[in-house]
Amino acid sequence: MAVEPEKQRLLKQHKETHFTAGEVVRDIIIGVSDGLTVPFALAAGLSGANATSSIVLTAGIAEVAAGAISMGLGGYLAAKSEADHYAKELKREQEEIVAVPDIEAAEVAEILAQYGIEPHEYGPVVSALRKQPQAWLDFMMRFELGLERPDPKRALKSALTIAIAYILGGLVPLVPYMFIPRAQDAVLASVVLTVAALLVFGYAKGHFTGNKPFRSAFQTALIGVLASAAAFGLAKAVQG
Amino acid sequence: MAVEPEKQRLLKQHKETHFTAGEVVRDIIIGVSDGLTVPFALAAGLSGANATSSIVLTAGIAEVAAGAISMGLGGYLAAKSEADHYAKELKREQEEIVAVPDIEAAEVAEILAQYGIEPHEYGPVVSALRKQPQAWLDFMMRFELGLERPDPKRALKSALTIAIAYILGGLVPLVPYMFIPRAQDAVLASVVLTVAALLVFGYAKGHFTGNKPFRSAFQTALIGVLASAAAFGLAKAVQG
Repeated sequence: MAVEPEKQRLLKQHKETHFTAGEVVRDIIIGVSDGLTVPFALAAGLSGANATSSIVLTAGIAEVAAGAISMGLGGYLAAKSEADHYAKELKREQEEIVAVPDIEAAEVAEILAQYGIEPHEYGPVVSALRKQPQAWLDFMMRFELGLERPDPKRALKSALTIAIAYILGGLVPLVPYMFIPRAQDAVLASVVLTVAALLVFGYAKGHFTGNKPFRSAFQTALIGVLASAAAFGLAKAVQG
Repeated sequence: MAVEPEKQRLLKQHKETHFTAGEVVRDIIIGVSDGLTVPFALAAGLSGANATSSIVLTAGIAEVAAGAISMGLGGYLAAKSEADHYAKELKREQEEIVAVPDIEAAEVAEILAQYGIEPHEYGPVVSALRKQPQAWLDFMMRFELGLERPDPKRALKSALTIAIAYILGGLVPLVPYMFIPRAQDAVLASVVLTVAALLVFGYAKGHFTGNKPFRSAFQTALIGVLASAAAFGLAKAVQG
């Protein structure tokens, strides 16, 4: 049977569907997003409070270091605790399959019954799983608990990726303060440079995550601008 | 058939398993974690660079505002884009079930075959799904794509929860700088207060996410201390 053009289009789309942003891309996005936004806003805020470029730079670099460590280690521990959770659940399901197989089999039946499948229809599937404890275990992890086997190296990779992405993003708004001594002058260059970077990054983010690139560019820049406007206003209020 | 004590224990454990930290708890943890860590480290860093309490407070409040907006709006857009992604995939699967039902049915077969289930065993399940397009669609979303239907109000709730949690966490390390004019004195009070808060918060986080509370308390405090030590060192280096 030849597949018609309409069907071919759908199939092609379907394949593309399966492209979801890889975990590394997601970690880069998390790091750069926050890195471009928070140090930028902090620097703008301090400039609004008549700080010198030297103080702005000191605060900015302290923030980038703190943020990279907090996000990197936070990401590391989150990935680690996800892996621990998976291991714990795996052990528990394994024990249950041995100790209370009837109850586990009833759970398989319950999962399939949710989709309007009748006992005489899912019966053979339940029996087949009972004959293969390893496949049964995999089935329960995926379909009962909705858990995916985590990559053991993910925690470390994730931590490093987020931290480096945060540092790279965070240095962009600080560059002008390295060269322009008066913070009130440097802040303008920082705004222009960072808004441009946010637009480019937002566009790329939209492209990689399957969202509309122009909308993503606009939204990403808007968050940065709002955050820095708030920081600017509050810093002025505190200093005033 | 009476369930034996060992089985009862397993069943009880199994129910507890299903307690995973709710989404609100997770959002609070994200916000407070970062809030307690980054403004704390920034304030410590600036104190190390001989800034006055007034500058530290200005920078800290600017950071808290920027961080709350960046994390809150970031969380909002992430939840929104997850919901958009779900809607897009739902529509695509729906079209495919109508246009290329044989291919979709083969995908169901493929999913079940991964678990060592034979064609004559899964056949009736595939036929049953084909008779109920809505259940079939739900099955594909969950088991082919691994997607859960998102809560439509989640984006806004998530944004507000993260932002408020970040502000509450971020104000803790700044309180001493409001009352102690010399930053070199205020920093000590800030360290004591924040480390205590990190320990209590880490303990609670461990409790709510099913991890070991004491280990969680220690890890959370360690991240805060490492981040602020790095910020302190870098700020001193930049100023020096």
